Amino acid sequence: MKNVGIIGATGSIGSQTMEVLRENRKAFNLTGISSHSNYKKTIEIIEEFSPEVVVVTEDNAYDIIKDYCKDKNKKLSLYRGIESLEKVSEIKENDILVTSVVGMVGLKPTMKAIENGTTIALANKETLVAGGRHVMEAARRRNVDILPVDSEHNALFQCLQGEKREDIKRLHITASGGPFRGKKKEELINITPEDAVRHPKWNMGMKISVDSSTLMNKGLEVIEAHWLYGVDYDKINVVVHPESIIHSMVEYKDNSIIAQLSNPNMKLPIQYALTYPKRIDCNIKELNLFDIGQLTFERPDTDTFTCLKLAYQAGKASGNAGVILNTSNEVAVDLFLNGVIKYLEINEIVERCLNNYEYMSKPTLEDIIQIDKRIRKDLYGLYLGGK
Amino acid sequence: MKNVGIIGATGSIGSQTMEVLRENRKAFNLTGISSHSNYKKTIEIIEEFSPEVVVVTEDNAYDIIKDYCKDKNKKLSLYRGIESLEKVSEIKENDILVTSVVGMVGLKPTMKAIENGTTIALANKETLVAGGRHVMEAARRRNVDILPVDSEHNALFQCLQGEKREDIKRLHITASGGPFRGKKKEELINITPEDAVRHPKWNMGMKISVDSSTLMNKGLEVIEAHWLYGVDYDKINVVVHPESIIHSMVEYKDNSIIAQLSNPNMKLPIQYALTYPKRIDCNIKELNLFDIGQLTFERPDTDTFTCLKLAYQAGKASGNAGVILNTSNEVAVDLFLNGVIKYLEINEIVERCLNNYEYMSKPTLEDIIQIDKRIRKDLYGLYLGGK
Repeated sequence: MKNVGIIGATGSIGSQTMEVLRENRKAFNLTGISSHSNYKKTIEIIEEFSPEVVVVTEDNAYDIIKDYCKDKNKKLSLYRGIESLEKVSEIKENDILVTSVVGMVGLKPTMKAIENGTTIALANKETLVAGGRHVMEAARRRNVDILPVDSEHNALFQCLQGEKREDIKRLHITASGGPFRGKKKEELINITPEDAVRHPKWNMGMKISVDSSTLMNKGLEVIEAHWLYGVDYDKINVVVHPESIIHSMVEYKDNSIIAQLSNPNMKLPIQYALTYPKRIDCNIKELNLFDIGQLTFERPDTDTFTCLKLAYQAGKASGNAGVILNTSNEVAVDLFLNGVIKYLEINEIVERCLNNYEYMSKPTLEDIIQIDKRIRKDLYGLYLGGK
Repeated sequence: MKNVGIIGATGSIGSQTMEVLRENRKAFNLTGISSHSNYKKTIEIIEEFSPEVVVVTEDNAYDIIKDYCKDKNKKLSLYRGIESLEKVSEIKENDILVTSVVGMVGLKPTMKAIENGTTIALANKETLVAGGRHVMEAARRRNVDILPVDSEHNALFQCLQGEKREDIKRLHITASGGPFRGKKKEELINITPEDAVRHPKWNMGMKISVDSSTLMNKGLEVIEAHWLYGVDYDKINVVVHPESIIHSMVEYKDNSIIAQLSNPNMKLPIQYALTYPKRIDCNIKELNLFDIGQLTFERPDTDTFTCLKLAYQAGKASGNAGVILNTSNEVAVDLFLNGVIKYLEINEIVERCLNNYEYMSKPTLEDIIQIDKRIRKDLYGLYLGGK
């Protein structure tokens, strides 16, 4: 039985992780969770899985859950606030920590878990985009596995089984192309948040859905893949593949390509990360290629979806460019989802930040945390007038 | 440096194997070869690679090469006839034997090499179709690897790296569909040998090209896959994939599918079998999915291409049904290529033989060799009047 902790337990990946745990009760024990504002789901998880540690990062939800635990006489350690996320990372019994929070907030608790020697099931790509060098160095030092949960990186990981890293010639990361594939910039001027979160193939959270529509998600994944597999950016290729059946591919030095395919369902990569190196039955629909009929491939349109270009640029620049890219994007997407800016301003804000914030080639972890704070302060200040 | 022997050195696979050896002179030493009637290519190989053992199975070619070696004062051991094929298998220094002869004739030299503890790079699928149980049992007993050279089985082998056999749920063997894909039986009545050998995707020998056009080749591959990977026939799926880019796929118990892709070129699987477990650079064209644009999939039409159905039937029957299927097909294809029978008689002959020859559930190797001889004698007698 594996002891599993999870930060971000009530989000999209978190909920699907719960499904995997539910379907494999004998394989996993849930030790601790964090949630944000969704107190209903948090209570359901407490009732169903009895975690010993619960962190709630939003105040109102925390109060509700505190009362609930008191009423029901629940014996668990309850913590408040983002700074308490590390309480889940610190659980000594954890065999694996699923990091499914969204955004930079995952960086510190991930580092903490690595220091504790806990395997990471990484669903929080922003952590690697912002702090890839530190995370990977810590993982190497502590001999900790970082198992990717993102469907693309999980696919790459599957395609790398039994193979040597030095034999990799190129990674091919597939992209559905998002809801605006085929559109030109002028058609994207009046895109609303409702349009942007309507993803054609994957059922995901709000932020990642917007990222997927701008192709920033793919850009973040390129950077994530660079850190996970140590492959140069000019050897990471993005392939638009609208059917989302091939989840990514590894090309080897002999020009052989290994690909991973399945119906698009996050339960598969989540479970693979949790059960690795084992495979167990997974309750998703079998792929039927006769029904699918065809798989198509096209180049990404980086003139329209400039975020992908910006991500490559930031990745290649390395240093603190990753955190600048990521934080400016996080804030811009939040501003867009809250109706403060227009859709095409997302990439404008990111580009401006990449050009204007001072470049550092070897930022410390603290530098990264500071620049994140500063960009947030600046951007929210600028757009909300200090609200 | 690996010592490589090869039987069937001047055929299609043999010639491509020579290309691989030529491009990697430091990795391989050619110890011995066999050839049939192509004395020109045989002499070229002798000049280029200086094998110590040469077997020539056709009399006229043998005489020419014998004279040539005498004139040029070549110090090599030259042998005549099919019964001498084992001379290549017996070379003590061999690390690997490539079996690229066509047909049942590969069975005995393959068994001999296994007994000698030599790894087999198997390009001779008829060996497994006819004698799969004996070959695999001998390989297990002697702890000898059977490395598949067929592009499909090599793909499956690549997709199985780092995975457990017991996790296999299903094998998906891809098929180009051959030159007559989409045609119905009545359109195949007047097919000529020239039509049948014109394969759309692969440049192959005559016999395999005809087999490919009837889908018997795919049927033989299903049986080969059964023996190589121990998977039941109802878990081996044939997928028509006209682009021949995905060479086959393994579906695992968690509904994840691993696939191997490349431009269609036999040098890749040949080289992979020769260098396994290493990958080295391979001089074939890189796959560009943007240029390809799409990959399509359809069900095989087994009402038209009944050979595939017959192969499943023979495979499931097991026992001596494999050798009956294979020998009757070998003779029928030969009769067709020589203008003796019409195209659609190939499957009629195979079906008749499967129904009429006595079924044995546990044939010995000698039983297999005897029934092969008997079917050849009967069929050639029937169609050529004892010629």
